[in-house]
Amino acid sequence: MSLSEIRCQPLTVASFAPFGDVLECAGFPDKMINGGMCGRYHDRARLDFGDARGGISLFQARPRSLPYTLDLLERHPEGSQAFIPMSEHGFLVTVAPDMDGKPGQPQAFLSTPGQGINFHRGMWHGVLTPLHLPGLFAVVDRIGETPNLEEFFLDPPYVVVS
Amino acid sequence: MSLSEIRCQPLTVASFAPFGDVLECAGFPDKMINGGMCGRYHDRARLDFGDARGGISLFQARPRSLPYTLDLLERHPEGSQAFIPMSEHGFLVTVAPDMDGKPGQPQAFLSTPGQGINFHRGMWHGVLTPLHLPGLFAVVDRIGETPNLEEFFLDPPYVVVS
Repeated sequence: MSLSEIRCQPLTVASFAPFGDVLECAGFPDKMINGGMCGRYHDRARLDFGDARGGISLFQARPRSLPYTLDLLERHPEGSQAFIPMSEHGFLVTVAPDMDGKPGQPQAFLSTPGQGINFHRGMWHGVLTPLHLPGLFAVVDRIGETPNLEEFFLDPPYVVVS
Repeated sequence: MSLSEIRCQPLTVASFAPFGDVLECAGFPDKMINGGMCGRYHDRARLDFGDARGGISLFQARPRSLPYTLDLLERHPEGSQAFIPMSEHGFLVTVAPDMDGKPGQPQAFLSTPGQGINFHRGMWHGVLTPLHLPGLFAVVDRIGETPNLEEFFLDPPYVVVS
């Protein structure tokens, strides 16, 4: 049986809006600071940690490659989750809309250098998939004692192609 | 008149501890996730936004070079401020202890690729000083209506050397 293919689309504010925020320096900064030496693009992520707090963690992930087999989606019902690459490489972002508590048709995005993302609370998404070393990301998400994790295995899986 | 020189020291958890947190993947991760493909270094920053909320902004700063004239320090009395480089370059970090409401003897740190920092609430520090293009950082700080800014001009300035 041949698996269904998902073709990567560019990561843009508009295309990603149903799932979360794109963190990038597009257009003019909201404010110039430091005597004109620095532009501030202000408050670009819709953070939501419910009744808990947010924190900064670091994720060191092993790079993958395309075509990529997408067999697992997850979501965090209690909080948003932002991924900020600490390198100048794009990475693969997989998501799906919710359909009555299960993921619908998955979509795949390829980011460009200088872009981070913030998954809105409860959005279905694949695990962190850098395509290059070092696979290092800062993650801003909910810090709490609950698992805050729901997983859904895709059977059959999809294949993400460039 | 010759200006006082400040020599850069390496940015380490121990040396930076009086001023804030170093965000880096040192040692073993706190947890392996995603089927062993990703290490999570959990909750590495002491965030403090008082009675307001935190947010993610992007800073695009013009690179500087050494020797660097340090003539201004600032602090944010109402919140911590984290800087996460979205590139694989070290950057210059300047700080000073507080001495009765004014900055004491400044210190300078040079980060290495893969390191971010979080200034603790109220700590004196210099403005964002990347040393390389693209000078792009994600910043996690307090989002609020107050200025949350105190500045102190150093007269005479210091010169930061490598």
